[in-house]
Amino acid sequence: MTVIMGAQELSEFLGREFPQVAGDFAIEEVGDRRIRVRLVVGERHLRPGGTVSGPSIFALADVAIYLALLAMIGPEALAVTTNCAIDFMRKPAANTDLIAECRLLKLGRVLAIGDVLIYSDGAPEPVARASLTYSIPPK
Amino acid sequence: MTVIMGAQELSEFLGREFPQVAGDFAIEEVGDRRIRVRLVVGERHLRPGGTVSGPSIFALADVAIYLALLAMIGPEALAVTTNCAIDFMRKPAANTDLIAECRLLKLGRVLAIGDVLIYSDGAPEPVARASLTYSIPPK
Amino acid sequence: MTVIMGAQELSEFLGREFPQVAGDFAIEEVGDRRIRVRLVVGERHLRPGGTVSGPSIFALADVAIYLALLAMIGPEALAVTTNCAIDFMRKPAANTDLIAECRLLKLGRVLAIGDVLIYSDGAPEPVARASLTYSIPPK
Amino acid sequence: MTVIMGAQELSEFLGREFPQVAGDFAIEEVGDRRIRVRLVVGERHLRPGGTVSGPSIFALADVAIYLALLAMIGPEALAVTTNCAIDFMRKPAANTDLIAECRLLKLGRVLAIGDVLIYSDGAPEPVARASLTYSIPPK
Repeated sequence: MTVIMGAQELSEFLGREFPQVAGDFAIEEVGDRRIRVRLVVGERHLRPGGTVSGPSIFALADVAIYLALLAMIGPEALAVTTNCAIDFMRKPAANTDLIAECRLLKLGRVLAIGDVLIYSDGAPEPVARASLTYSIPPK
Repeated sequence: MTVIMGAQELSEFLGREFPQVAGDFAIEEVGDRRIRVRLVVGERHLRPGGTVSGPSIFALADVAIYLALLAMIGPEALAVTTNCAIDFMRKPAANTDLIAECRLLKLGRVLAIGDVLIYSDGAPEPVARASLTYSIPPK
Repeated sequence: MTVIMGAQELSEFLGREFPQVAGDFAIEEVGDRRIRVRLVVGERHLRPGGTVSGPSIFALADVAIYLALLAMIGPEALAVTTNCAIDFMRKPAANTDLIAECRLLKLGRVLAIGDVLIYSDGAPEPVARASLTYSIPPK
Repeated sequence: MTVIMGAQELSEFLGREFPQVAGDFAIEEVGDRRIRVRLVVGERHLRPGGTVSGPSIFALADVAIYLALLAMIGPEALAVTTNCAIDFMRKPAANTDLIAECRLLKLGRVLAIGDVLIYSDGAPEPVARASLTYSIPPK
């Protein structure tokens, strides 16, 4: 399938539609139903000990699949998450960015499903795994 | 079963261990394997349009079950979320607190499982549903 | 909301559309977005030791929410499960029927979401918890 | 990591411990934290129209991750599923075996987590995706 929004366009879209959080995320690579997104870790993402919080990991998973979807269908600000299953598997490295490796498994007319592995930058084993469903509004 | 930490003690624990987020949450009622927790919605929880963000809803579900667990087993800062399944069912009301109604379904030696319904304050139908597993460290 | 198929009609529907499994399930009570369904445990549902198998527990959760949905929207054989999150919390009692207590949490135009607690008949604590999403085909 | 049970030993274990279902599954390939398992589809797995049922897909996901775990830790009949999140994404091909491609994402002391993609044999797009947690009993 053809990618219709690249990293630059996705990044601009995020900055325009979600200005509160756009600075947290850097889009590293976009491909056919695949994306890699970085959480640029700052003070507000951390728990005592310097570990990235669960809600920040969730936010990364959510935005990564949203962007993977937009890359394929274009700017649909109204696509909404309907479901997420997430496993927290390892403690993230302290004060380290997270990397989400995401793929779309289904891109239907009304539902899209993707999964994502999340790594502390540079670490070989994932800290979390998530799968999410997005509902796509009718045109 | 006996509640061993009440609303006041849970609130102090949260303030001490998680000072970054403690102000977001108000513990409204604690019972036997049950708790009601309020997300005091502020600017940082909102998306454009005034809707509470997905990560903020996740954070409320997560903290509510954590506190329901601590109420029964005492202050275990090290209990960690291992898994969450969450359904986003309705758009939250704009600029309105969220209320989590939580119950523990299992309180084992190593795992605890709870579920939670989340409402916009005053609304009859839930905006989200979540179930979470916590891993309890050995004493 | 009004129940438009009662226990008798749901049971006939199940026998007609899913003859392979209809005999496994007894519909005990139907209400507004609520249903109670019994898994009549037989040899084929058991694992060594007489415990009901995971797939049989899944099947009960799935059929219970499907029937809760049909009770409200009428006979839609084509509604399909899109998602299930299930927690296995306790070992079921040996050679004992299972009871599913189910409620619909959302009944939208295209998606329905329900959750269910599953008990060994007569036991106070649930053996499993599940939440499922059904996709409803356009008329 | 070293595989300590190969396809032959896993198959014998399944036949010995789970004789009711062992004939349903063929272990096609075992590797380091990876396994491929076939559901040999028979009449009892089908719904009207020849489609493999949801509980049969669940059963395949469950057994595949169980076997991937045993391949790494040895014969632990008592490891139990504590959690499963499953997405049903496409209708399986009629009267066609299913193939589960499974990997272990975490192999801890007390918990193991794996995910699996399930395909109709020969089809390029998965019919389902699942992630499961297994609890490993203390030795």
